[in-house]
Amino acid sequence: MSSTFGRLFRVTTFGESHGPGVGVVVDGMPPGVRVELGAIQHELDRRRPGQSAITTQRQEADRVELLSGVYEDVSLGTPIAMLVRNTDAKSKDYDTLKAVFRPGHADFGYQEKYGVRDHRGGGRSSGRETVGRVAAGALAKAALAGVGVHVVGGTVKVGSVAAMDRDWSLVESNPVRCPDADAALLMQALIEKVRDEKDSVGGVVELVARGVPAGWGDPTMDKLDAAIASAMLSIPATKGVEIGGGFGMVELRGSLTNDVFDGEQYASNFSGGIAGGISNGNEIVVRVAVRPATSIGKPQTMAKAGGGTETVAIEGRHDPCICPRVVPVAEAMLALALADAWLHQRALRGREK
Amino acid sequence: MSSTFGRLFRVTTFGESHGPGVGVVVDGMPPGVRVELGAIQHELDRRRPGQSAITTQRQEADRVELLSGVYEDVSLGTPIAMLVRNTDAKSKDYDTLKAVFRPGHADFGYQEKYGVRDHRGGGRSSGRETVGRVAAGALAKAALAGVGVHVVGGTVKVGSVAAMDRDWSLVESNPVRCPDADAALLMQALIEKVRDEKDSVGGVVELVARGVPAGWGDPTMDKLDAAIASAMLSIPATKGVEIGGGFGMVELRGSLTNDVFDGEQYASNFSGGIAGGISNGNEIVVRVAVRPATSIGKPQTMAKAGGGTETVAIEGRHDPCICPRVVPVAEAMLALALADAWLHQRALRGREK
Amino acid sequence: MSSTFGRLFRVTTFGESHGPGVGVVVDGMPPGVRVELGAIQHELDRRRPGQSAITTQRQEADRVELLSGVYEDVSLGTPIAMLVRNTDAKSKDYDTLKAVFRPGHADFGYQEKYGVRDHRGGGRSSGRETVGRVAAGALAKAALAGVGVHVVGGTVKVGSVAAMDRDWSLVESNPVRCPDADAALLMQALIEKVRDEKDSVGGVVELVARGVPAGWGDPTMDKLDAAIASAMLSIPATKGVEIGGGFGMVELRGSLTNDVFDGEQYASNFSGGIAGGISNGNEIVVRVAVRPATSIGKPQTMAKAGGGTETVAIEGRHDPCICPRVVPVAEAMLALALADAWLHQRALRGREK
Amino acid sequence: MSSTFGRLFRVTTFGESHGPGVGVVVDGMPPGVRVELGAIQHELDRRRPGQSAITTQRQEADRVELLSGVYEDVSLGTPIAMLVRNTDAKSKDYDTLKAVFRPGHADFGYQEKYGVRDHRGGGRSSGRETVGRVAAGALAKAALAGVGVHVVGGTVKVGSVAAMDRDWSLVESNPVRCPDADAALLMQALIEKVRDEKDSVGGVVELVARGVPAGWGDPTMDKLDAAIASAMLSIPATKGVEIGGGFGMVELRGSLTNDVFDGEQYASNFSGGIAGGISNGNEIVVRVAVRPATSIGKPQTMAKAGGGTETVAIEGRHDPCICPRVVPVAEAMLALALADAWLHQRALRGREK
Repeated sequence: MSSTFGRLFRVTTFGESHGPGVGVVVDGMPPGVRVELGAIQHELDRRRPGQSAITTQRQEADRVELLSGVYEDVSLGTPIAMLVRNTDAKSKDYDTLKAVFRPGHADFGYQEKYGVRDHRGGGRSSGRETVGRVAAGALAKAALAGVGVHVVGGTVKVGSVAAMDRDWSLVESNPVRCPDADAALLMQALIEKVRDEKDSVGGVVELVARGVPAGWGDPTMDKLDAAIASAMLSIPATKGVEIGGGFGMVELRGSLTNDVFDGEQYASNFSGGIAGGISNGNEIVVRVAVRPATSIGKPQTMAKAGGGTETVAIEGRHDPCICPRVVPVAEAMLALALADAWLHQRALRGREK
Repeated sequence: MSSTFGRLFRVTTFGESHGPGVGVVVDGMPPGVRVELGAIQHELDRRRPGQSAITTQRQEADRVELLSGVYEDVSLGTPIAMLVRNTDAKSKDYDTLKAVFRPGHADFGYQEKYGVRDHRGGGRSSGRETVGRVAAGALAKAALAGVGVHVVGGTVKVGSVAAMDRDWSLVESNPVRCPDADAALLMQALIEKVRDEKDSVGGVVELVARGVPAGWGDPTMDKLDAAIASAMLSIPATKGVEIGGGFGMVELRGSLTNDVFDGEQYASNFSGGIAGGISNGNEIVVRVAVRPATSIGKPQTMAKAGGGTETVAIEGRHDPCICPRVVPVAEAMLALALADAWLHQRALRGREK
Repeated sequence: MSSTFGRLFRVTTFGESHGPGVGVVVDGMPPGVRVELGAIQHELDRRRPGQSAITTQRQEADRVELLSGVYEDVSLGTPIAMLVRNTDAKSKDYDTLKAVFRPGHADFGYQEKYGVRDHRGGGRSSGRETVGRVAAGALAKAALAGVGVHVVGGTVKVGSVAAMDRDWSLVESNPVRCPDADAALLMQALIEKVRDEKDSVGGVVELVARGVPAGWGDPTMDKLDAAIASAMLSIPATKGVEIGGGFGMVELRGSLTNDVFDGEQYASNFSGGIAGGISNGNEIVVRVAVRPATSIGKPQTMAKAGGGTETVAIEGRHDPCICPRVVPVAEAMLALALADAWLHQRALRGREK
Repeated sequence: MSSTFGRLFRVTTFGESHGPGVGVVVDGMPPGVRVELGAIQHELDRRRPGQSAITTQRQEADRVELLSGVYEDVSLGTPIAMLVRNTDAKSKDYDTLKAVFRPGHADFGYQEKYGVRDHRGGGRSSGRETVGRVAAGALAKAALAGVGVHVVGGTVKVGSVAAMDRDWSLVESNPVRCPDADAALLMQALIEKVRDEKDSVGGVVELVARGVPAGWGDPTMDKLDAAIASAMLSIPATKGVEIGGGFGMVELRGSLTNDVFDGEQYASNFSGGIAGGISNGNEIVVRVAVRPATSIGKPQTMAKAGGGTETVAIEGRHDPCICPRVVPVAEAMLALALADAWLHQRALRGREK
């Protein structure tokens, strides 16, 4: 297993869904940064289950404990370990799943890969692993804020309902985390309908990073977009990522999409703030495709570990659309990718900018 | 700069467009694999300029030389270095570009990042860097073939013309490298039209890997899809990547997209062969968004290094659609990502499967 | 900071001496290995303070808690996080040290490097960090035992008293952890004398790994001896490492030291079981120079953070000779280096041997 | 195989003794540094065979070619590839060695590890691999010189003849590269005697780095001394490394060896310039044990690949004492370790110091 992201801002998550706890070690946080426990907890609260009517009703307080690396509220430059205890782990619910492979889940792959697995709640493949990512991302955000870089994100599509507007100040005011108030209502209605059908629906999460100076990202293999793509597709349930114009841009002409630049400003942002793998000073724009949640209440045909199939309804508390809870995770991962690129640029030039 | 891809099957490219040469060191090729110089050269020939009427007319023979790591046509397990000399480098053509930043290119980012650059032909940011990737990919393909894994790829969309069919045996029989003969004709016509307009158009490249057993890929951060995404977006001119159902799948329901599995076969492949970051035994399916080539013949407004702008037509020999030449590069990168995952799985389990 | 050792068997320690706790995340432990909490605790007990009259009298129970990666006493192949709470942290004792740099310690370096530090008990530079190493090493030992590899170690020199014999079964029967009962008595007497003088003395720790097959280690840069050397000099208070004949061998002739080999057995072991960076099937023999402990009770002149010096006696509970407690740490680090080389060899060949 | 040293200043060597050539890719050289081909060649000339009566008489011009990463004599920040063609490769000489394992060499380990090997001249395990290290080290030296850091080295012991003095200006004036003119004569006489006996003798190489500011090195696992130890023991024929007081220091008391510091200067340097894994502002002092060269002309008993033994005299041109040629290699590796630590410190603090 390889649970480490980043090369200089290195983040290693740990923990199974129904083990003692989940957490993270962040090694590479620069020293001297103010670390607010409340800011970390705030991000975890955005991620935690049970926060609204359209997320899973599983209840986890997800209180984070700082184990190291911070002294008198300031980062020491040493590894910052954070732990969240698992509390609402109803392991018994999962006994029926011990010997089947849930469709769309990693159950079969884990069994084939490791030869052993903790089937309870998905074990390591559970979305609970993202607790560590979000806690780490809060640190990255704090560090990046010190150099004027800020990340925002929201749900811009659910099923076929797309946001037309991008008012990021609205994101926390609706349970979908949509930057378009009108679309948010339609999305919420769709999610509730799907939930009542014991089914799920996918969506798209969009992220914007502001204040990134030109020059971040390390060609030719750790390009900023390559690092971001890796960060995004490491998030459970994601199946695609695009930068700036992305897939839609392939139908256009180069004379339109080349983002005319006068040395100060860009006339457009088809590049999504990255050219040749290096930030170009424009806003970084990333979109992530989130598949319909694989955990659904409808009865499904499943392969049995010993051979044959059976049809099972997975009881439990599912997210009908995972997008609202992916938002803080995706923001965290973007912040981690940016923090890593930032430190590499400091190494390269020996100065902040 | 970080020009290394992979952690066990490690590939480091080097070279500028107009320097002495470009190449690669592959450290991690397993020992005892037959290495055919002809197979490497064949892949390079698929990538090289001037191979058809719809690619750039720049002529480079791109003859590869093996410098190390192979003895009596068998890999030694030691680093395999390969070198391709640059020959058709008309550096003078680029004198006018020394002090401007071409739109859409990495010129500005390189200048801001490094403070110095080789402007000739894009220097390190040139597509010529992919020579090393393709040569390395040929080795990865050879190694993977030994365990029954094969990678194919082709152009499945140019502008708004999409391939309806996937007959991979057709790919090398048309200059677009399209697996659909009818679509290929339409694509070619579109590319020629765009070329005559001194403009460019984008497209989508699709890749399929067959024979990958369940169990490859390293959650939670080096998931197989995360590694593939990083590989793809490290290729010049790419702006998006999706696995299996990708962005289109977000509009569907989980009950449809969960890929029912009976223990032997999958009823569908929305997952694109990867669930929870681990291969599930199904075909790996990847699509890459390729932007309209940024190098076009039309006059464009460019920022000058010293301030202000000027309007310049970049003379030279451009690719009106880069997709046909991205195909072998993307195949190579997928092969590299798979080879790395394969070796990790061998380390994990201590046996081939 | 870079608190990760290993590339496939990756170990990341965290924690300050007087923070909430110290611990480790082990990512890369193969799945399916039996993990005994008692075995981990046993190694920690060998390392902990207060275990005998000649170690520091600081009392820490050092109870380890498993946070993840183990289910029903078997490793899952996922990250194994372990935590030891700090309990006997008398932070007040250190107030006088806040503004001085203790001689021989890392205080000044940390201040210059990070610009901020937790001065209490040495903070991150404290020997307490090795708790995580020892816990991780216990896992590595368990994994290695499965392939017949075992590590032993002991104190073979204290001051100028050298062990003449190597009976490893004696190591735990004397407080010096010396494999020579007679020498152990002399060593103990010397340590007690030095302790009474409020001073310290150095020594040499020797390690032997048995059962390592030929073929482990990755030239040219991650040679087995290079990895072991890095492992050893990452341990606090070490100033040298040698393999096999080491420094003494430089005075001899090649015709003597070439370790004649008949295909089955070696006539000697000047190579210490490693030739060309690869294990040769002979026992691995490593010796580590341990400096006189820098923490002593004698008054010493110290630089003050604001300039000038003062003479201070560091009250507290010191180890007069750190060797007995370095033994389990050095064993752990050797086990970690071997485990990493073992997994690399599995990746290379796709089979256990 | 793992032929990469460093994490930010990354060096990957390639090449077999009797293949087309040997070389290196340096990825991480900071941009804007003046690169003199002559300076690189000068270091290679110090390393090459045939330079004096006491080194092997094998003749290799070892002319280096720059393949990338430098434009108008300035580093671009992109990978710098360098190639040295093999010319004096008398492969036929080695036919008799195809089926035997030379004592003390890596032959057996390579065969067991890789299952295949290039036996000619030791193949990849040949000392010729160090050509790439020395070329890379010349770049590191150039980069470090820009921040006032300089590395010197010499042979301080041959057999039992030890240098009493350290006048580094003398090193290039005697073939032993000894910083003590009187000892140099005795060493040379000893080497000539050993050579005439068709035998070999070991020695110690000492290195000093001046101008390293306090703060370099990354605890707890990539401590500066750990990185240096790894660098040194990755050099062929080395069997030990010590920092500052090293093994001799274990007999002393902490009250003597603690290096009293007044905030400006140290009263002694038992720490060898490194405390707690971080440079402390004092000179870095490193000593490396070099075993008697394993290639000797005397007849030796060797294991045959198919079983049994035979006694063979290895004809050829051997180094009776490898120390004079290890000096430039060890300097190079120290420079590489320091360059990597330097870049990490820039990443940590975002400024040069």
